[in-house]
Amino acid sequence: MKIVLRNENALYYECGYSCDNALLIRLGDRAWFVTDGRYAIEAREQVRGAEVVIASDIYAKGAQILKKAKAKRCGYDPAEWDCHAFGLLDPEGKIEWKPKPRWSQKRRIIKSLRELELIREAVRQGAEAFDRIAARFRDEGIGMEERRLAFLAEEELRDRGLRELSFEPIVAIGPNAAKPHARPTDRILRHGDLLLLDAGVKVERYCSDRTRTAYVGERGFDFGISQRFPSRKIQKAYDAVRKAHDRAIAKARSGMKARKIDALAREVIEKAGFGEFFVHSTGHGVGLDIHEMPFISPRSETRIEDFMVFTVEPGIYVPGKFGIRIEDMVVMRHGRAEVL
Amino acid sequence: MKIVLRNENALYYECGYSCDNALLIRLGDRAWFVTDGRYAIEAREQVRGAEVVIASDIYAKGAQILKKAKAKRCGYDPAEWDCHAFGLLDPEGKIEWKPKPRWSQKRRIIKSLRELELIREAVRQGAEAFDRIAARFRDEGIGMEERRLAFLAEEELRDRGLRELSFEPIVAIGPNAAKPHARPTDRILRHGDLLLLDAGVKVERYCSDRTRTAYVGERGFDFGISQRFPSRKIQKAYDAVRKAHDRAIAKARSGMKARKIDALAREVIEKAGFGEFFVHSTGHGVGLDIHEMPFISPRSETRIEDFMVFTVEPGIYVPGKFGIRIEDMVVMRHGRAEVL
Repeated sequence: MKIVLRNENALYYECGYSCDNALLIRLGDRAWFVTDGRYAIEAREQVRGAEVVIASDIYAKGAQILKKAKAKRCGYDPAEWDCHAFGLLDPEGKIEWKPKPRWSQKRRIIKSLRELELIREAVRQGAEAFDRIAARFRDEGIGMEERRLAFLAEEELRDRGLRELSFEPIVAIGPNAAKPHARPTDRILRHGDLLLLDAGVKVERYCSDRTRTAYVGERGFDFGISQRFPSRKIQKAYDAVRKAHDRAIAKARSGMKARKIDALAREVIEKAGFGEFFVHSTGHGVGLDIHEMPFISPRSETRIEDFMVFTVEPGIYVPGKFGIRIEDMVVMRHGRAEVL
Repeated sequence: MKIVLRNENALYYECGYSCDNALLIRLGDRAWFVTDGRYAIEAREQVRGAEVVIASDIYAKGAQILKKAKAKRCGYDPAEWDCHAFGLLDPEGKIEWKPKPRWSQKRRIIKSLRELELIREAVRQGAEAFDRIAARFRDEGIGMEERRLAFLAEEELRDRGLRELSFEPIVAIGPNAAKPHARPTDRILRHGDLLLLDAGVKVERYCSDRTRTAYVGERGFDFGISQRFPSRKIQKAYDAVRKAHDRAIAKARSGMKARKIDALAREVIEKAGFGEFFVHSTGHGVGLDIHEMPFISPRSETRIEDFMVFTVEPGIYVPGKFGIRIEDMVVMRHGRAEVL
């Protein structure tokens, strides 16, 4: 195996440590973890299976290592390398570079039992945080802006600093939920609003990801999957999203292509007349990266196998009106999707 | 001007909006902001001076736009583009690509009056947060782990969700402070510890950045620049860092090369016998990016000019023992460095 890696999670997967300025060179049995002086202590403590090399210019040092080792052919993932850094690795153009798209994500697509346990724990902690968030929103959230609500959500997710987030939580009220990746605004939460929450936490760098859409009634609310909206149109959309979510999970099988699972969800939403408002893929893999393989999209030819972990998250987004998404993570086991 | 841009802050600077999956093509008077459906609503509301184009594959769409416009030559910043995405822009290899390293950062190196006001406000809010953080650490922080301290710091910096962070705050106790980019650990804060805090906030996307190193005495402490350590060695190092910081600020002049300002600080630390422990540059520009031009490093030939904004942050890091850094931001005005 001859490869140069640059992505933080790719490095972490290979040698148990990474930081934001490092690269890993593997040439057969030898490996070098190159980083700068700021990370010297941590790298020396934590890197496994590679020699730690400290240099102020990690690319020049990488080029030196490759030259000294007389590397003639080497793989790289074009998505991990920016054109500038990649150019520095081989200034004399002596190496035959083999593009290996998603090299690390492909290695990581089948989860080990240990990885699955970490992911399961992240999902459990994320789900518990959703309950605490609902309670705090009921107590303190009515009359509060999305930005402050997002911060309350983050406080609960991070559990007073003990957890890291998978990503900045999305808290979107009413029409703002029609933006699938909404940034929190100054819009204020009122009784009678629709409220979307998309959030996750990490356990030892492994991510969780979950979305619920709730009706914020006068008598309180929760982020459970059963929701009643006074608007018939919204209820119809919600029921379609839920049916799409449930169907994709119930009918997903190992051996299927990922696009078939996308279709299982998409067909329900199309049949309900909302096809044009389901503007993204049905899901994505989750692990060290919050978005990784397999991608559950209309074009994905990836064959789904046992111990793959991914989200099922159909949605309906009507611009200016409302947005709905229900997202759970599943693991394929014994040929079927088990909700995490 | 013919350029393709990919970096979020580069896009924001050009057209007032950006998101994590977008590119901007400028060909003379025409410009296209290409993003995917998740960002369609926000992009259409906020992008100025460019046509918003929505596509599920933004690179294929970019290639189409370049082809239709019959672009023959075009600039790009190699650091903004990963090899994969860049390859998709010109699949037939018909465009003569001109590398323009740091194209956007060079445009942004001289701050406008409005930008300076936003940065000034970010610095003011960051400094106020340091005072609140000291108060909370005195009240609640003794006996608490770095990770929880970092979270308390973040709560104060984010002001209950109204502010964004420039970066995850660094809270490092004693020997952990010897790692310039330490991640918070389970180490517990005790009276008698050295405590380093490096943090900043954003105001309308413009960053602040500040570091203080304090002695946590029995009778309380603050993040002021005057500190008394019981250890003579630590005090000697602290005094050297402070003198280096003060000298670089007092003697910096517009017209100097950046490396001269680095030397103003470095000479003090070398003379005090700690040269080998000052393992990074003296400073970096701050604006939309937390690290941008000008870089105040021993090798930087950048000529410093009025209205450049950068940090002055000498440090001494003795592995396994302690770390000290003092960081302030300055703007060059009337030929001199004014502390923000």
